[in-house]
Amino acid sequence: MLVNRHQVTIEWGHCDPAGIVYFPNYFSYFDASTNALFLRALSLNKYEIRKKYDIVGIPAVDVGARFIVPSVFGDVVTIESTIVEIKRSSFRMQHRLLRGETLAVEGHETRVWVGRDPVDPDKLKSKPIPQDVLVQLKG
Amino acid sequence: MLVNRHQVTIEWGHCDPAGIVYFPNYFSYFDASTNALFLRALSLNKYEIRKKYDIVGIPAVDVGARFIVPSVFGDVVTIESTIVEIKRSSFRMQHRLLRGETLAVEGHETRVWVGRDPVDPDKLKSKPIPQDVLVQLKG
Amino acid sequence: MLVNRHQVTIEWGHCDPAGIVYFPNYFSYFDASTNALFLRALSLNKYEIRKKYDIVGIPAVDVGARFIVPSVFGDVVTIESTIVEIKRSSFRMQHRLLRGETLAVEGHETRVWVGRDPVDPDKLKSKPIPQDVLVQLKG
Amino acid sequence: MLVNRHQVTIEWGHCDPAGIVYFPNYFSYFDASTNALFLRALSLNKYEIRKKYDIVGIPAVDVGARFIVPSVFGDVVTIESTIVEIKRSSFRMQHRLLRGETLAVEGHETRVWVGRDPVDPDKLKSKPIPQDVLVQLKG
Repeated sequence: MLVNRHQVTIEWGHCDPAGIVYFPNYFSYFDASTNALFLRALSLNKYEIRKKYDIVGIPAVDVGARFIVPSVFGDVVTIESTIVEIKRSSFRMQHRLLRGETLAVEGHETRVWVGRDPVDPDKLKSKPIPQDVLVQLKG
Repeated sequence: MLVNRHQVTIEWGHCDPAGIVYFPNYFSYFDASTNALFLRALSLNKYEIRKKYDIVGIPAVDVGARFIVPSVFGDVVTIESTIVEIKRSSFRMQHRLLRGETLAVEGHETRVWVGRDPVDPDKLKSKPIPQDVLVQLKG
Repeated sequence: MLVNRHQVTIEWGHCDPAGIVYFPNYFSYFDASTNALFLRALSLNKYEIRKKYDIVGIPAVDVGARFIVPSVFGDVVTIESTIVEIKRSSFRMQHRLLRGETLAVEGHETRVWVGRDPVDPDKLKSKPIPQDVLVQLKG
Repeated sequence: MLVNRHQVTIEWGHCDPAGIVYFPNYFSYFDASTNALFLRALSLNKYEIRKKYDIVGIPAVDVGARFIVPSVFGDVVTIESTIVEIKRSSFRMQHRLLRGETLAVEGHETRVWVGRDPVDPDKLKSKPIPQDVLVQLKG
């Protein structure tokens, strides 16, 4: 499977009064890393993906993280993101945030390929992930 | 002119490693307070305003703030927002963030009433603020 | 067990270009709701808790969420937070974000009661949750 | 005077339902750019600066911005930051956010070199900027 490495500089404003990254921000980092992986795999950003494949988006429906070691202002961390499972219309991302050699946070997202419901365009409906996308995501 | 009072609870995640509100967040508070003022004046939220008046939005084009006294996690502060000047297609908001009786932050925003350019719909163009909106904003 | 209800107004700046709450923000809402529960249970905010019980904090070590229905700008949602399990030095919070009667997001956090290691004060170490805190948390 | 160039990738979560950067985030970008300038000028991050010069911080006391052209998800923008004026215990930063060749946002911050009041350590007091810092900032 495709692995993408995404670097993040921990900024002052990402940290809380305890002096460490405010934990919801890790999900922003992971989301950015997922977007970077798609950009690299498909050479398309989210807007272009939505247009080309006629979808509304690839929303996360289930996410989680384990916080092992805190990161602080000034750290430059690396997020290794992998697609660990692909189903018909959904897939599971795994994110490993490394602080140097140390695994600092481990996270995951399940995302769904979602378009408009052809029967009722006001509703959303999962769609099968197109074949060419599958090929690229599998690296 | 209309004055709106908007209460904000300072959350842990709004504060930085110095233990005080990370200053960009004051602009989010002010923006929320502007939205609350419009909701109260027009009984419409931003989406409804865009639809009813056929505009794209009321973007801030010029903002500023003076930080006098810091606020910390757990504070409940009040923002007093006033429209201090209205022109043909723009207006100026003033925000006073009060921590108890103390003026803690003073801010301002100039916002423009913006629609699509009738000549080129890909472009934006300022529009005159409608008469009924003016009446409501003047309180 | 204690249940706390915490109301959140979805602000414009919490939402993304898809027009819905940017999902990491749900964890900020949940964190605020946990803080509100502790404030209510112990009549102490986080700073006061740290001082009274000589701890460094109550960090989340494991969190997750399921996103069922999106929320949008202008919604006023309610978060029902419960402590569903208490161990010696950790506990598990459950959060249910309700949009009207609809369960929109379901989340959880495992948090640890953490102090300085008496052997090496540069290190952190979990501590048993004090008896009086247990009594309050159990409602 | 020293000029620092700082690159920022506009992430999905920085943008609002209008599809453009939520304006308070520009102040976070500018703050990060100021920190990057200090890191480059002094080879010290904010924590190290506080320790070496025995100060509490370099808080912004007055900030402002003009939003000329919006930026969107996927843009990589450059912030050119300059110290345009230095006084005894304060200085003024100017930030120019460039989207390609276009000036998209112009901002400024007045910051103060702040320590503890020797008479009452619970209070803060501006301090003269040290000579060696002045030399580095003037480039």
